[in-house]
Amino acid sequence: MTFSLFILGSSSALPTSNRFPTAHVLNIQERFFLIDCGEGAQMQMRRMHFKLGRLNHIFISHLHGDHVFGLFGLLSSLGLMGREQDLHLYGPSQLESVILQHIKMFDIHLPYKVIFYPLECGKSNVIFEDKVVTVRHFPLSHRIPTCGYLFREKERIRNFKPGVIEKYRIPIIKRKGIQLGDDFVTENGETVSNEQLTLPGPLPRSYAFCSDTQYDRSIIPFVKGVDLLYHEATFSNADVNRACETKHSTARQAALIAREASVKKLVIGHFSARYKDLNLLLEEAREIFPATFLAEDGERFDVPLVRAKETERLRG
Amino acid sequence: MTFSLFILGSSSALPTSNRFPTAHVLNIQERFFLIDCGEGAQMQMRRMHFKLGRLNHIFISHLHGDHVFGLFGLLSSLGLMGREQDLHLYGPSQLESVILQHIKMFDIHLPYKVIFYPLECGKSNVIFEDKVVTVRHFPLSHRIPTCGYLFREKERIRNFKPGVIEKYRIPIIKRKGIQLGDDFVTENGETVSNEQLTLPGPLPRSYAFCSDTQYDRSIIPFVKGVDLLYHEATFSNADVNRACETKHSTARQAALIAREASVKKLVIGHFSARYKDLNLLLEEAREIFPATFLAEDGERFDVPLVRAKETERLRG
Repeated sequence: MTFSLFILGSSSALPTSNRFPTAHVLNIQERFFLIDCGEGAQMQMRRMHFKLGRLNHIFISHLHGDHVFGLFGLLSSLGLMGREQDLHLYGPSQLESVILQHIKMFDIHLPYKVIFYPLECGKSNVIFEDKVVTVRHFPLSHRIPTCGYLFREKERIRNFKPGVIEKYRIPIIKRKGIQLGDDFVTENGETVSNEQLTLPGPLPRSYAFCSDTQYDRSIIPFVKGVDLLYHEATFSNADVNRACETKHSTARQAALIAREASVKKLVIGHFSARYKDLNLLLEEAREIFPATFLAEDGERFDVPLVRAKETERLRG
Repeated sequence: MTFSLFILGSSSALPTSNRFPTAHVLNIQERFFLIDCGEGAQMQMRRMHFKLGRLNHIFISHLHGDHVFGLFGLLSSLGLMGREQDLHLYGPSQLESVILQHIKMFDIHLPYKVIFYPLECGKSNVIFEDKVVTVRHFPLSHRIPTCGYLFREKERIRNFKPGVIEKYRIPIIKRKGIQLGDDFVTENGETVSNEQLTLPGPLPRSYAFCSDTQYDRSIIPFVKGVDLLYHEATFSNADVNRACETKHSTARQAALIAREASVKKLVIGHFSARYKDLNLLLEEAREIFPATFLAEDGERFDVPLVRAKETERLRG
């Protein structure tokens, strides 16, 4: 029941010797989502032992090169690897023509189909869902149209308390309904409430991705309470004016969003090349929001499953 | 008096965890030439401690993505670094429109000028020269128009033998002429031959780059006798049919070219991802041409200066 975020790149537009441009892989129960695709993302995936063929969904936040320039090589590599399965590509509406032009320019023949989902970055909608997860996009506030993405596990069915199935002789046919919240009427006509029979399932986990945005409190409702928030932190507080001019954020501003949104953990990234030592940014963020971590290349952030009992205790 | 080749990437179209796509940097006496620019070339340059700002000339062999996809990010990074100096870009004639479209698509504003030199890949001409070096392009034989490049130091002036200036009282005004080959007439009217006065200068050094080509003997006249030949070797001998189909070469074929062209040293690269261990390719090449080396990422090949005395000995 994995829920893990992998950082492929943490630089802003100018990469450094140890920071590649933005790209994240999110693994939710063996579904692999690639979020942004800066130059070198495919090489970083190989280094981190991801199987490229397991990618089915790619989400692009905006059309600045440091978030997209790895996509052309990746699409081409998937083709060379003989991919036949459809690939689903989500991003600002102009992305489709960019990719199509590129494929034409470089005479690339893909043996698989790329299905585009053009997004209006000013809006927020559920853009993907399956049995396990939903993905929603929401507006960020940058120099060009930019989408944030929210990944959330679906609510899980409730778990039976130990021994209740035997105690109340609950037939198989009734069990699914009870796990979904039904009460149970015994053979004797006695009603047993759902609370007596079940515990809540593990809590759904969530990850929100806020790449390239200025400090904007209107993001907060979309990322409220997530387990893991990635928020760009291009600059240190000393460079707050530069952050304003370029519509980026400081580490402190990222932490303010995290605190106000009551998230569990904040991951900051998209660091300007001017900072050799990132501890300054980390400290500035931690002053506001202690559970802050650096999204350095190669880092992994796991969101543990909080099981029913713990849930009870937390809720209690 | 450096003459060094640096390998930034050695993979063919599909990169691996330790092989980036093709890109070379050639340093000739502190002139830095970038030759092909596969994805991630700028990150590899940073890792190898090159100053990106010192690049003034970029040569692209052909418009397959694994030789070009690093160029967009690099051009953008040079802009972000505040470059103002012109950048000279050589490649097949379609390269210009590809770059211009890209700059437009991604709303890239470059604070410097890119000067394009569109090349007809079927021909061979000197495309750059300065006091020290000339660069010539020549045709390779691939699926699309592809240029090889030959970098050659210019002939050096001859060096005076020790003591001759004093012995024959050669005035300053005559010295340059003698270094260029003149004989000298002394105050007494005696003619001293140039051979008595001078030794040849160090030999001009040369590097030829043959990226993506099938085995084609018509390359030989262009690379004849070079100090360092890079020739692609995508496949092992067992996959010679695949090499034919895709218009690539085997390691053995690269070595045959090197041997027939009497080059000093052969560097092979552009390895297919199917080969985990490259020693097989190296052995196949060395059977034909022992002075073969692998162009692995991060490798450096120095061409030493062969000085006058050694030249004499070699020629003697």
